[in-house]
This record gives sequence, structure tokens and C-alpha cells, in this order.
Amino acid sequence: MLKPDYPPAYRLLEERFRRIYALREAAGVLDWDRSTMMPDGGADARTSQLSALEVTCHELLTQKEVGDWLNEAEADAGAKPDCLDEWRHANLREMRREWRHATAVESNLVAAMTEAEGRCEMIWREARPKSDFAAVEPALDEVLRLSREMAAAKADAFGCSPYDALLDSYEPGGSCAAIDELFDDLAAFLPDFLSDVQDKQASRGFAETPEGPFSLEVQEELGRQLMKAVGFEFSHGRLDISHHPFCGGVPDDVRITTRYDEKDFASALMAVLHETGHALYERGLPTDWRLQPVGQARGMAMHESQSLLVEMQACRSPEFLSFLAPMAKTAFGGDGPEWEVDNLHRLWTRVKPDFIRVDADEVTYPAHIILRYRLERQLLEGSMELDALPEAWNDGMVSLLGIRPLDDRLGCLQDIHWFFGAWGYFPTYTLGAMTAAQLFEAARQALPDLSEQLAAGDFAPLMDWLRGSVHCHGSRLSGDALLQSATGRSLDPEVFKAHLTRRYLDA
Amino acid sequence: MLKPDYPPAYRLLEERFRRIYALREAAGVLDWDRSTMMPDGGADARTSQLSALEVTCHELLTQKEVGDWLNEAEADAGAKPDCLDEWRHANLREMRREWRHATAVESNLVAAMTEAEGRCEMIWREARPKSDFAAVEPALDEVLRLSREMAAAKADAFGCSPYDALLDSYEPGGSCAAIDELFDDLAAFLPDFLSDVQDKQASRGFAETPEGPFSLEVQEELGRQLMKAVGFEFSHGRLDISHHPFCGGVPDDVRITTRYDEKDFASALMAVLHETGHALYERGLPTDWRLQPVGQARGMAMHESQSLLVEMQACRSPEFLSFLAPMAKTAFGGDGPEWEVDNLHRLWTRVKPDFIRVDADEVTYPAHIILRYRLERQLLEGSMELDALPEAWNDGMVSLLGIRPLDDRLGCLQDIHWFFGAWGYFPTYTLGAMTAAQLFEAARQALPDLSEQLAAGDFAPLMDWLRGSVHCHGSRLSGDALLQSATGRSLDPEVFKAHLTRRYLDA
Repeated sequence: MLKPDYPPAYRLLEERFRRIYALREAAGVLDWDRSTMMPDGGADARTSQLSALEVTCHELLTQKEVGDWLNEAEADAGAKPDCLDEWRHANLREMRREWRHATAVESNLVAAMTEAEGRCEMIWREARPKSDFAAVEPALDEVLRLSREMAAAKADAFGCSPYDALLDSYEPGGSCAAIDELFDDLAAFLPDFLSDVQDKQASRGFAETPEGPFSLEVQEELGRQLMKAVGFEFSHGRLDISHHPFCGGVPDDVRITTRYDEKDFASALMAVLHETGHALYERGLPTDWRLQPVGQARGMAMHESQSLLVEMQACRSPEFLSFLAPMAKTAFGGDGPEWEVDNLHRLWTRVKPDFIRVDADEVTYPAHIILRYRLERQLLEGSMELDALPEAWNDGMVSLLGIRPLDDRLGCLQDIHWFFGAWGYFPTYTLGAMTAAQLFEAARQALPDLSEQLAAGDFAPLMDWLRGSVHCHGSRLSGDALLQSATGRSLDPEVFKAHLTRRYLDA
Repeated sequence: MLKPDYPPAYRLLEERFRRIYALREAAGVLDWDRSTMMPDGGADARTSQLSALEVTCHELLTQKEVGDWLNEAEADAGAKPDCLDEWRHANLREMRREWRHATAVESNLVAAMTEAEGRCEMIWREARPKSDFAAVEPALDEVLRLSREMAAAKADAFGCSPYDALLDSYEPGGSCAAIDELFDDLAAFLPDFLSDVQDKQASRGFAETPEGPFSLEVQEELGRQLMKAVGFEFSHGRLDISHHPFCGGVPDDVRITTRYDEKDFASALMAVLHETGHALYERGLPTDWRLQPVGQARGMAMHESQSLLVEMQACRSPEFLSFLAPMAKTAFGGDGPEWEVDNLHRLWTRVKPDFIRVDADEVTYPAHIILRYRLERQLLEGSMELDALPEAWNDGMVSLLGIRPLDDRLGCLQDIHWFFGAWGYFPTYTLGAMTAAQLFEAARQALPDLSEQLAAGDFAPLMDWLRGSVHCHGSRLSGDALLQSATGRSLDPEVFKAHLTRRYLDA
């Protein structure tokens, strides 16, 4: 079959983006290597390699001809819409989006930001363990100042608010207006709900924790078995160890990591399941569009929804735990009532307000996010200055979770995001949790036997449904349209609240 | 201190080459990953990544402004030589050399070659185990035809012979005239010498082989201990497993590999020592010139000399084996006369003509190389056609080593080089062996206690000498000037012959 005669400007764009994405994939693998394989002495060389890749990709995206091709291809598509099919129309739209992000900001501002982020992150790594906010404040202030400048420049170019302009990098098409509505609803629901859940959990007594040590080899082997059960193909990926669990690599060679603790096997295992959710999203993206914008995952909220759907919705369900509990018991040679399904379910759905976001349970997690979202908006909009942050953080924790951090290490110094220049990222965690609940609800309706399947460790029907409803669409649709097409409606906080209520109060 | 005011064109060139080398380093790490970590399913994506890097580096090197900067910087350097110091003069010379290689050949010929090589290598992988030369001959003929075209284009641009033009990629400044003289000398020496060695080895009886199985974990641990003894820093590198041993990564993060055989620990161990020699050369290159042409290793012959100096000259010496033998015996819990130093020395210096180059001993190895060198010259110059290759190969084996391959798998199909387009590479193996002998001889004179040091497993003085005499010079000098500065003379076949005579006849 001859290749259809797409307009020349569009074809040049596909070629250019194919190169850019291949170089980004190269950076993705090098990034994975840095966290898993690289000896310390390789750090400076790796920084040079990644920075050369970043500069090169930026140049390839912002060279004058790319803007010309975009104008020309859009004119072609406008004059004769059927010169491109639906995927290519969407691809062109996403190309323009990327180009706008890359060109909205002057290159000297980008360079100043890169330097400021690097410096600030380094100082933060020293300041956090010492709980020394003052030490990092000047560097963070510089990052914040530049982030405001970038937000303003992008807001100008996109015709939206500064915060929305930053958010768009992580959640394309996202807006404060939508998030405020969702988060205000949740923030109103959570305090009473949390109190009810704590009462209920206290009244029935706390779960018992299986005692280790748990052999790291057995933990890894169990993780691999579960990855395979969920659908991970080891011919297209790896499991390794890193300081923080993550999902890296590229769609056809997707590399997840975890870290093991001899005293607690659940932490590594749940991390493996979480990252497997991310990995299967990458693997399920449309193969025909591998190195094109339209072939990429639809934003960080949708990505997080896939990991949380696997970990929180499926794998912490009583059905799946009835499959996992005996498997873990056998693997570790466990014995006693703490290995019973019901006990493990209570243990792994224990709700307890605490200071650290990454260790938070499903119920308190949104409070951590709402706090960060509200604070970062105030900081970016200039309605709060940086020296007020520690106190505002601690007050926010009291009002949302009823606890006050003892120091800034447990407070505003805990997360790398702001220090590293990732402003506008936080909301995607909770949007992802809500999306996961809504997708799982739709999957339940589409798959009447889902409970039995999960109880048998059979993820194939669920994964088929996800691939067909979410993964295979890449970035063809907006996030909202994708969720509508998969679940019949836009993001609805009632579904998430109903899920929490069912799991934590009704059960 | 303010940076001296080097001419602007030169500074632009340094900046450009820094980017190019950082991208090449990225490719180096991805290449290592492909052979050690990558699951099979990642192959296509990896090919796209590496090809995007290669195209990008080629563009960055051949863009019109680079030629202009070179002209301008050379004019500056000519008009006012002290505007650049010695390192920068040499750097400029090496930049011009790289630029000439990259620009001498039309880009459509480069693209045709890349495709032909890829295709031919794939067919060769199937044809070799079946010993089916006819199956790969058409694809190889295409690679040869394009190699002739490339050689002719480069010969035109460089004003040298076509073979010398290809050789220059691997051995800068090398020439057939010099190689012919060296190889003819060796070819005249080897047959009688080989016969004498075989008589001598037969007369004293053959060595006994320690019997396995040898635990892979112990093999690896022993390899790591010896790497550290030789000077490998694990904070700046790794040891992993791959199908064929190699040295990859980048100077500050140098990654060597080996493969283990439960029945024979010597093979993996000697590979580890060989690759450690390569690794220490990379590590010892001048840190101030990391991402510049002048900071790179001085050609493949010098590189091979560093691996052979460690493996063949130092580690197969009776002195070092008196250190290694008891260590290996203890590690593997060995017992009996086969673990004695003298036996292991005889075993590991056993000379026996055989068909496969990569398994050849130190005495017969040059014969394999001389054969390939003579054949590839005839093929490139057109004085032999491809269909005559198998017979010519087998005749050459008879005349050089007295044995005739049973089939082409053991003959002209054994090495990947030609099928992969690497014409002009083979001579560097034997130039490297001769260089290793000459450097080791010079080290012996500079270090009167070298024998005792090696017998104690102390490589520090030898490595200090190599770093100061070879590694730290990068590509500042030509290969010949570097060898002269380190040993007082140009490559002299008498030194290699004297080494062979001492080890294999006199001892």
C-alpha cells in the first residue's frame, strides 16, 4: 500500500518529532540508569549527557522552520480537513501544544531556571535532613521568582492564567477552575469522613503486622510473579532497585523499580504493583504512534490513575487480597492469624493522619495534595511570600488533618517538587486517584465477573478493558474527553467519595 | 582566573564538540545497556534512539558553520600560533580530522551504507551457524561495493590510498606502507617460530587443566578482586555480563563485561583483565579534555595495547601468576598439581594453531590478523572478487598456520567486522599486541622492581607509569609520536619477537 499523500509540512513535522522523541527516549533510559546502575563517579558525565540531549531536543523543537511547518500544516488542515485523518489532526494539535510550551519562554530564562533548579535541589538535599528551611529559602526564592516569570510568559502566550499555564505541562487542558471545584468538594468531605473512619477502625481493633525478616530474594520473586499476573511482560521491561520506586524507560522497554525492607514486605510489593500500573499504561499506548506526540500518555493525572487503579482499586481490594494473602504466606513461610486475608486487608487499608505524603494512606493523601495545591497557587500568584510558607504549611496540616508537623523536615521540606521547579504538578496525584476510582467503577460495570477474576489473580479482562478504553487512545482525545469516552462522564468527585465510603465505612 | 581569550571560532568549535561528545557518550551508555540490561523487546526502540543520536551528531559536525569555524580558527592559529596552546592546537587538528571523515562522504552514501550494514549483519547472524557463505554473499557484496565507494571518496578528500583512508578511522595516521613492513617481517618470523614453540611445548608435556565446576559467584568475586588489584575503581565503573566481553560506558563511568563458563574459569578471568586494561586507559585520559577530540584515546591500536599489556604482558607473566595461582586455588577450593604456578603458566601460555581468532593464543593471533589484513586489502582494491574469498581464506590459513578450516563457519564467516562494514579495523589488533610488548619493555626499564611488584599483585607503579606515559596524553600526539615519547622509538617488530622468544622458547 502506498503511503497516503499527507501535506508536506505535516510530514516534515512527523519526521522532526520522531527524532525529538527518540532522543527523549534515550534520555529516559539514561535517567533510569542513573538511578539504578550508575556508580556515583559517573554523575557529572551523566549530567552533561542529559543536558546535551535536552538542549538538542529544545533546539530541534524551536528552530524557525518548525513554526513555519506548523503554520503551513494547520493552514492545509483548515483548508482541506480530510487531508489528515483524526489521529493526524490530533497529532498536529499536540505538536502545536508542545511547540507553544517550548517557544513561550525566552531561552535565557530557561537557562537561568535550569541553573537555579539544579542549585536549589542540591541545597535542599542538605537542608532537608537538618530541617533547615532558612538555608534553602534564598535558592527556593530564586526558583519561585523564575517560575513566576515563566508562568507569566506562558500565560501571555496561551491566553490563560499563570497557574493554568504551568499546570498544562503536566495536565494538558487542566484548569484551576475545575480543580478548585473538585478539591473544595473533597476538602469539605474529608474531615468528617476521616473522623468516622478512624472511629470505625479503632472500634474494631487494629490489625496485626506479620513479623519479618522477609528475605529480599523472596520479596523480589513474589513481586515478579505478581507483575506477571497483572500483565507485565519481562520481554519488554525490567524490575530493579532504586532509592525511590519509579517507572522509567520507554513503552517497549519499560523499567520499574522498587526498594526492599527486610522488616516490611508490603511496602516494596505495593510499590511494585503501583509502578506496574504505570508500566502497563506505557506498554498499551498505540504502537503506530510510538515516537509522535499523539502516541504519548494523556497527562500525569491519567498516568497516576493507572498506577492507583492497579495498586489501590484492584490490589488492595478484599477480592484480590484473598488471592495474594495465601501466596505471600506460602512465599515467606508465614504462620498465624496476621496472615489471614481479613487481617491483611485491615492492615493495608489502615487510615492514620501523618506528616509524610509518600507514606500516606488513600484517605489522607488528598489532604496532603490539597494543602500543596493551595499553597503553591498563593506562592505563584504572589499572595503569599516564601518566608510565610513553613507556618502556613503547618497551619494547613492542622486544619486538614488535625496534626502539626514537629519541624520543616516533616513539613514543607519533605517533597522535592518545588525545589526542583515542578510547580503545578501536585494536583495530578489526587486527580489521578479520583480518575482511578471512576475508571474502576466503569470497569466493574463492563466486567460483571471482575471481582471473581481478581480473586483468582486474573487481571487479563481488566487490562483488556483498560487498554481498549484508555491506553490505546494515547493523546488523541483531551483528558476530559478520554474519561468521558471510557466512563460516560467527566471527573465526578462523588465516585471517589463513594469508593472511599464503601471501602472504609460500609465494609 | 579569567579564561584566556582564545579566538572566537576556536571557542565555538570547543562548544560544538563538547555537545557532540556528550551525545556520543549517551550513545555509549545506551550501547552498553543494549548488551547487558535491555530485554529483547526493546531492540527496535533502541535502534531508533541510537540512530537519532548518530544522525544528530553527524548534523552537528557537518553543518556549514563548522567548516567555516575550522577555516577561521586555522587561519587564526596560523597567523598567530601562540593564540592557542599546544593542547588546543592538537585539539583543532583532531577536530579537522573528524570533520574530514564526516564530510568526505555524501550523506546518501552514508545512509545506503547504514542500511546495507544492518541488513548484511542480520543475514550473517543466520548464515554463520549454517556455514552458508552463499546466503550472505550478495549482502556482503553490497557492503563491499559501498565500502569501496566510501574509501574512494575519503581517499580523494585526504589525498591518500583508499585503504589508508578507511584505516585512519581506527588508526589515525596509519598506513599500508608501515603495516606491510611490520606484518611481512612477522609473517616471515612466525612459521618457524611456531614450529619451534610447538616442539618445545610437546617435549615437556602438556599442562593439566583444573577441573570444575567453578561457581559463577566465586568467578565474579575473584574477577572483582583482580580488577581492584589492577586499579579499577568501582566508584567509576561496573562489571556485568554480556554475550561477548567488551569495555563500554564513558571514561568516568567505564563499564566492562565478561561471560562465565562453569567448566573454565580462566576464560572469564582473562577477559576481565583484558577489559580492565581498556577501562584504565579510558579512566586515565586527561580529565581537562573529557568531551573534546584531543581528550580521546589515541586510536584502536593503542587501545588494544592497553588491554594486551594488562592481560598478556602482565597477567600471563610467571611473576603475576605466582600471585594469582594461590588466590584462585583458595577461591575455588582447588587441590592438586594442576593448581601449581608452573602448571597454570604452561596452561595459559599454551600455543596451538586453531581456526577461531578470538580463541587464539598470543603466538598464532598475528597470523589470523595478517590473513584478514591481506584479504581485505585485495577485496577493497578490487584485485580479488568476493566469490574467491572462502578459498583464499582457507589457503591463507594453510600457508600461515598449516591448518585448513573445515567449513566457512570456521573460516571467513567467523568475524562480524566485514559484514558490519568495519573494513580497515583488523590490523589494529596486532599493532596493539606489538605496541603492548614495546610499552611493557619500556616500563620494565623504568621500573626495576616491576617483576617483584607484579609477583605481589601490586600494579600501582605500572599503572602510574602508563598513566604518565600514555593515558594522560589523550590524542595530543600522533600514535607514532606517543609511542616514541613513551619508549624512545617507533614501533619495532624486534621487541615483540623478543618477547615471544623469551616467553615461549627461552623460559
